[in-house]
Amino acid sequence: MSTAASRFPAARYAERLTRAAELGAAAGLDALLVTPGPDLRYLLGSRAESFERLTCLVVPTDGSAATVVVPRLELASLNDSAVAELAVPVRDWVDGQNPYELVAALLPGAARTAVTDAMPALHLVPLAGLFGAVPALATDVLRELRMVKDDDEIEALRRAGAAIDRVHARMGEWLRPGRTESEVAADISAAILEEGHTEAAFVIVGSGPHGADPHHEVSERVLESGDIVVIDIGGPVEPGYNSDSTRTYSLGEPDPDVAAKIALLEAAQQAAVDAVKPGVTAESVDAAARNLLAAQGLGEVFVHRTGHGIGLSVHEEPYIVGGNTDELRPGMAFSIEPGIYFRGQWGARIEDIVVVTADGCEAVNRRPHGLTVLPG
Amino acid sequence: MSTAASRFPAARYAERLTRAAELGAAAGLDALLVTPGPDLRYLLGSRAESFERLTCLVVPTDGSAATVVVPRLELASLNDSAVAELAVPVRDWVDGQNPYELVAALLPGAARTAVTDAMPALHLVPLAGLFGAVPALATDVLRELRMVKDDDEIEALRRAGAAIDRVHARMGEWLRPGRTESEVAADISAAILEEGHTEAAFVIVGSGPHGADPHHEVSERVLESGDIVVIDIGGPVEPGYNSDSTRTYSLGEPDPDVAAKIALLEAAQQAAVDAVKPGVTAESVDAAARNLLAAQGLGEVFVHRTGHGIGLSVHEEPYIVGGNTDELRPGMAFSIEPGIYFRGQWGARIEDIVVVTADGCEAVNRRPHGLTVLPG
Repeated sequence: MSTAASRFPAARYAERLTRAAELGAAAGLDALLVTPGPDLRYLLGSRAESFERLTCLVVPTDGSAATVVVPRLELASLNDSAVAELAVPVRDWVDGQNPYELVAALLPGAARTAVTDAMPALHLVPLAGLFGAVPALATDVLRELRMVKDDDEIEALRRAGAAIDRVHARMGEWLRPGRTESEVAADISAAILEEGHTEAAFVIVGSGPHGADPHHEVSERVLESGDIVVIDIGGPVEPGYNSDSTRTYSLGEPDPDVAAKIALLEAAQQAAVDAVKPGVTAESVDAAARNLLAAQGLGEVFVHRTGHGIGLSVHEEPYIVGGNTDELRPGMAFSIEPGIYFRGQWGARIEDIVVVTADGCEAVNRRPHGLTVLPG
Repeated sequence: MSTAASRFPAARYAERLTRAAELGAAAGLDALLVTPGPDLRYLLGSRAESFERLTCLVVPTDGSAATVVVPRLELASLNDSAVAELAVPVRDWVDGQNPYELVAALLPGAARTAVTDAMPALHLVPLAGLFGAVPALATDVLRELRMVKDDDEIEALRRAGAAIDRVHARMGEWLRPGRTESEVAADISAAILEEGHTEAAFVIVGSGPHGADPHHEVSERVLESGDIVVIDIGGPVEPGYNSDSTRTYSLGEPDPDVAAKIALLEAAQQAAVDAVKPGVTAESVDAAARNLLAAQGLGEVFVHRTGHGIGLSVHEEPYIVGGNTDELRPGMAFSIEPGIYFRGQWGARIEDIVVVTADGCEAVNRRPHGLTVLPG
């Protein structure tokens, strides 16, 4: 497995910071305030994690330099970022100092700030107090950047997709009657790492009736012959881009009615994929899957949206959901994952990540979509 | 290893909800709003995680019932909580509904709300918009509850302490010249799980010059004979209470000057432990360690606070730091972890978790405190 770098070249982050400031200015904002999380990784390549001490990237929108406020103790958390190469000014602080006043001092006269989605109340409340107003969400600015992936980001999503495909390809090693969901999940977690992810971010093993709960994770239920099992798994590969792929398995030959319904689900997933191209709305992709299922009497059991954007976050814009009239653009990446759920009985879901191309889309997951039959 | 339950009996959470409402009312608040995180685990025993969809416990302070707002898709996330046993009303919502309006509708006329520290801006900003004001932080109310542990919480901290002590006791299996910090850390992570934690929350292996950075985590540096190595490790045990213990190791016999300085550090750690009893201030405990080191010329190299509270969060109140004049009370639990750091050379830190008793404190960590010499 080749090891990818933990971030892109520094120039990429310089461009992103400039673009973020420009978009912020256009939105009437004085500054963007970004604490650790996916936005900070996007703008600086920093994997710093949030603690009770404030770390905050301050991006003024008037063209003046961005600055990072950071606890002196945690200066090393910036080592893997582009801060040094870009000579981003760093203002460190020590216990006893008020870091919020440091941020405010960097922005004299600023009133209209916007904060990253991930900023915890612990920091947002004192900042709002100093600025005298509730900040806006920076998402409305950063979504314009983060939603459209560049070639390197798409390549990272391809690597993530291939890595999770290799895990699905090995499912027969672990998924069999007599084992518990949690035993299977532990093996899958290990394989997610073995196949090149830096973390097993989520592992859903929904067997039998548990498959009917779209957000079931894992339990001590023992798998039985005849179970239908939903496996929804993923995690990040360097430099932080996520995989997310679901396949549905049968332990032994399935009931013909179940197999027929899952064949319809496969057709619905394909219909949504076929609907993707630049210029169509996000909601029309949702409708493509939903209408096909509804026409077959399965509309009521498809209880969630069709998909979510993916990148540095597992869930981000664009959301593929009724009401989202955003038009798709080349480089947008999102899941297409219709599911059908029969409470107390079984469920099924099929999920690929796709990237919008000039005239359609490219799926980064390539495993067979239909029900995979394993020994029962 | 006996398996502890994932939460306390439901009556415990009923008491906590009542007390939280009373303290909120006394603080002039109309309601507390608690999204997933340690506060939600404290108040409901819920391990729900936060997603982009709002889950929020709404605690009115007028004595009316608390309610949980939750996405219908994530209803199962409440299964392990006390919600069902306590018959806490649940208001579920589906994609397309506005969950913030659901929260506001539960609190007609409310203006003065307080939010959990962990609430992300994604939810806080729209809630603040609906309530027309920046919320306060609920910490000022909840700290009164969470800071003083009951007998069952103290017992959980003892189990956590014993579990991490067992990991330190095995350090000789992994820590030796020729291995990288990250190889050692992987073995420690596995042992943290083997010894009864549910997660390896953090593993710091600071060898040689890396030990001089208090927040260094792990690197590809190869351990060398003669290295001084700081090992700071911990994680949660059921029902969610954390361990956190640091010991310093020497690979081979240490330089006498290094050994002498670490003996002073051990004395400083002990001086702080000896200073703990009900009625003394948090800062006086910090001063006990700091003054001893300063008297020996080591004040400048002790660059951080002496400790932090611990419980459902690894870092919580009370902070053992200059300026904190809060008086200690029986049941408070916190780290005592002075350290000395020589940039580019080596560092050392000694950390126990202690619980304040009627007349002093009990350390939940029992491993020898001095420099542990392993084969070099």
